[in-house]
Amino acid sequence: MQRTVWAEANCPLARAVDLIGEWGSLLILREAFGGVRRFDDFQARLQMSRNLLTARLKKLVAGGVLMQQPVAENARRLEYVLTPMGEDLATTIVAMRQWGDRWLFAPAPHPVDMVDSVDGGVIPPLEVRSATGRRVLPSEIRLEPSTARQEN
Amino acid sequence: MQRTVWAEANCPLARAVDLIGEWGSLLILREAFGGVRRFDDFQARLQMSRNLLTARLKKLVAGGVLMQQPVAENARRLEYVLTPMGEDLATTIVAMRQWGDRWLFAPAPHPVDMVDSVDGGVIPPLEVRSATGRRVLPSEIRLEPSTARQEN
Repeated sequence: MQRTVWAEANCPLARAVDLIGEWGSLLILREAFGGVRRFDDFQARLQMSRNLLTARLKKLVAGGVLMQQPVAENARRLEYVLTPMGEDLATTIVAMRQWGDRWLFAPAPHPVDMVDSVDGGVIPPLEVRSATGRRVLPSEIRLEPSTARQEN
Repeated sequence: MQRTVWAEANCPLARAVDLIGEWGSLLILREAFGGVRRFDDFQARLQMSRNLLTARLKKLVAGGVLMQQPVAENARRLEYVLTPMGEDLATTIVAMRQWGDRWLFAPAPHPVDMVDSVDGGVIPPLEVRSATGRRVLPSEIRLEPSTARQEN
């Protein structure tokens, strides 16, 4: 299948989709957030073919989202761990998960809550807000050349 | 290619990935948020094959994310519009876009800012916070059976 290469695009969403938007990648990351590190454990939990899982992990490592490290000092076996760039995907995954909870179980209630283990409370829905704290509607978001770039 | 069907899973992320996680779907939604409504306009902007675009749009309509409506009263031609469920994906798209801005342009600055057209300021990064306002780290998120479900 012919695919446009989005990574060259100037759009951060297109680049993100290129790196983490392939089928299965976000679920691999879900497992990584849940503490899974070994190939066989990813495989068992995701029921994904070994070839496909290998390809997805390779791309996530090459893209800097996961890294490989020895399971112990002097060990040969490698495991997969989230990089800071990967950890930073938590917000995206929480947003998508909350959307799924709102829309993809109805009319039944969603089965699982995300809870803050420190406070014990359910994590409230993420909301797009302005710098002044106003709730921003999708139609109110405008794209403008970045000031960071203009200064260069 | 054999695929696990995630939609049956009890995980909102798996269900979301099943519905909007195929290659190209999020970019179709990006265009829809940008005001694109017609098949030919999606096609021209995304450089996607007509067959693939047709399949993706069909799935997004079947899943309730987009709906088809006549371009004008009594018109035969249909256009694609976000449903409330689709509009509600704005948070996910903003989260992913901000992640891309932080990580996928370095060392260059990201080229475009998301600006609140009402206040004129750059939209600050989404953050996962507890009900009490504390910043929640990924490692602090725990999954628990939903209280809504327990009451049923």
